Amino acid sequence: MAIDYHSRLNQFISAASDKNTGLIIITDPVNIFYFTGFYADPHERYMSLIIGSAGESYLFVPALDRDAAAEKAKVDHIIPISDEEDPFDILGQHLGASVHTIGVEMNVMTVAHQNGIQSIYNEAAFVDIQSEINALRVYKSREEVEGLKKAVALIEKVLDKGLETVERGMTEADLVAEFEYLMKKYGASGPSFSTMVLSGEKAALPHGKPDDTKLEDGDFLLIDFGVITYDRYCSDITRTFVIGEADEKQKEIYDIVRRSTQAGVDAVKAGVPLKEFDIAARNVIEEAGYGEYFNNRVGHGLGIEVHEAPSIHHLNEDIAKPGMVFTIEPGIYIPGYGGVRIEEEVYINEDGKAEVLTNYPRDLREISL
Amino acid sequence: MAIDYHSRLNQFISAASDKNTGLIIITDPVNIFYFTGFYADPHERYMSLIIGSAGESYLFVPALDRDAAAEKAKVDHIIPISDEEDPFDILGQHLGASVHTIGVEMNVMTVAHQNGIQSIYNEAAFVDIQSEINALRVYKSREEVEGLKKAVALIEKVLDKGLETVERGMTEADLVAEFEYLMKKYGASGPSFSTMVLSGEKAALPHGKPDDTKLEDGDFLLIDFGVITYDRYCSDITRTFVIGEADEKQKEIYDIVRRSTQAGVDAVKAGVPLKEFDIAARNVIEEAGYGEYFNNRVGHGLGIEVHEAPSIHHLNEDIAKPGMVFTIEPGIYIPGYGGVRIEEEVYINEDGKAEVLTNYPRDLREISL
Repeated sequence: MAIDYHSRLNQFISAASDKNTGLIIITDPVNIFYFTGFYADPHERYMSLIIGSAGESYLFVPALDRDAAAEKAKVDHIIPISDEEDPFDILGQHLGASVHTIGVEMNVMTVAHQNGIQSIYNEAAFVDIQSEINALRVYKSREEVEGLKKAVALIEKVLDKGLETVERGMTEADLVAEFEYLMKKYGASGPSFSTMVLSGEKAALPHGKPDDTKLEDGDFLLIDFGVITYDRYCSDITRTFVIGEADEKQKEIYDIVRRSTQAGVDAVKAGVPLKEFDIAARNVIEEAGYGEYFNNRVGHGLGIEVHEAPSIHHLNEDIAKPGMVFTIEPGIYIPGYGGVRIEEEVYINEDGKAEVLTNYPRDLREISL
Repeated sequence: MAIDYHSRLNQFISAASDKNTGLIIITDPVNIFYFTGFYADPHERYMSLIIGSAGESYLFVPALDRDAAAEKAKVDHIIPISDEEDPFDILGQHLGASVHTIGVEMNVMTVAHQNGIQSIYNEAAFVDIQSEINALRVYKSREEVEGLKKAVALIEKVLDKGLETVERGMTEADLVAEFEYLMKKYGASGPSFSTMVLSGEKAALPHGKPDDTKLEDGDFLLIDFGVITYDRYCSDITRTFVIGEADEKQKEIYDIVRRSTQAGVDAVKAGVPLKEFDIAARNVIEEAGYGEYFNNRVGHGLGIEVHEAPSIHHLNEDIAKPGMVFTIEPGIYIPGYGGVRIEEEVYINEDGKAEVLTNYPRDLREISL
């Protein structure tokens, strides 16, 4: 994909200009990737992207990542730091001497890192520049949407083929193993988050964990998962099935959730507050008398992280705009009984209209053991 | 496993007592697990273990983790924080009013978190308590060693069975998929780090990434991986194979590395500086004339994280003591040619003697496609 990293960085510098920073220090590896095209997890080693007051960019990387950074990173200077060196000595040698204000991601930079920077610039004040980064990342270009679609196509193929392996005696953890195997086989870098396969009563737990619970006839089977591709785009989809034959109550609940998801998706367009999409989905569940069993926000943004801005909840007054990509995933969770969630990914296109990125069928499907 | 979390916490409080902290705030989820038995990844939500001056412990958790925390966490108070609440308001309501010194993990606590704490205790100074935590975690009890052995047994079974799937046309990424599938099937929580399968020239890259490179006759096949169990113990093992028939040079290099690993392991005992183990392994490679191709430290500690203290490198003067568990993993990496690494896990037992936790054979094995 041909992403113009230079223009991205300039947009950000321009957006952050009223903070009058002498330096901007970016330490979140995902944000570094966003601005440079280079991704690495430095573990305990030092890595940062630093932008000087004239817009010049420095990427400080662990020495062992130097070659990979040189190949990928669109920056002015790459400075390797070996294990024997003190990162803050190296920073001090390369950066300007006098800085009054430093922009950082306060939710990411550690106290130790801040202390190290303060040892170079004793007088400097720190300001948060996370919101300027989020404000850029929230709008996806067509190229990014194509990357997201690939991640969706991959996970839908995994869902399709993985379900063929379901058989009597299989546990939730077994099915997770099958799914994650197929993710790699089909070319994903890995799961975008911990693969969720929940059956029976456990389908009522929005944050439940798969274990050695066996799949049984009459159970709901809730599958919520996604991949991250080698281009680092994430997908996230939920479908709920019934094992064996669905009874009337299961059909009723499924139908309500299906209509709720559809109502949420149908509400999506540019120009209205994001809360509208949550409320549209929520109304269907409340009118059906199950309001007490839906306690979460209806969705979240996704892109190069599986959770990012915007948050789609009933109090969010921010206005929906072209370029946003987010999930719509209402559910009904009845403790001791089970639950249903159906999750779609939606993109607001250049015309301000919703495009649903997920394609997997939403009709209630019964799976036999 | 019956771990006495209360005694662990008291040992820590006693070790940190000379820092005269009015509060200690622990935010690393792994350290919280170490002291409470409860593990959660709070993602963007707030979680911390806070210890007051009288030793009382408070676990602040996201509301959705309240039940799981109540079941597992050995603490005096569990305080859930819902998404609508400001964590620092809640902290302020539960903690003492006047605090002069606060102990934190400076390498983990974010600037935003520190600012939040500072909003409650404007005058407080912060001190680092990471070294007191590391000093405890570095000594493993017999129970912990049993947990580590289970993680080793699991990954060795995965290695054994996974190699049976090797066939012509298979890529590095395919073999990663097979291995990670088996990890889950055999009951691991997941890989303890990104599974490394490197073939041919790529075996020369200590931090290389598996991709769609096909396994070919005559290649080295380097496999470095491990699991984390549901008890949260990690394993880490490397074996190197030859695909097809090994030639004389491959046999020579393999033999040197094998003798190097053995020399490192043989050197392990309590009472001598940790650097001795690195030097013993390194000498074998240097004497064989391959010194320039071994540029890494020889090993690292592991336990509830796959990399933790102690670091086994040629400058570490710290004295080896009973309870330490670490890897010995020398290698020869020849750019453009390939590489060999053989990695064992070693535990220094109560008698100060080395016990090798890894069991997988070290003889050169040829694998046919």
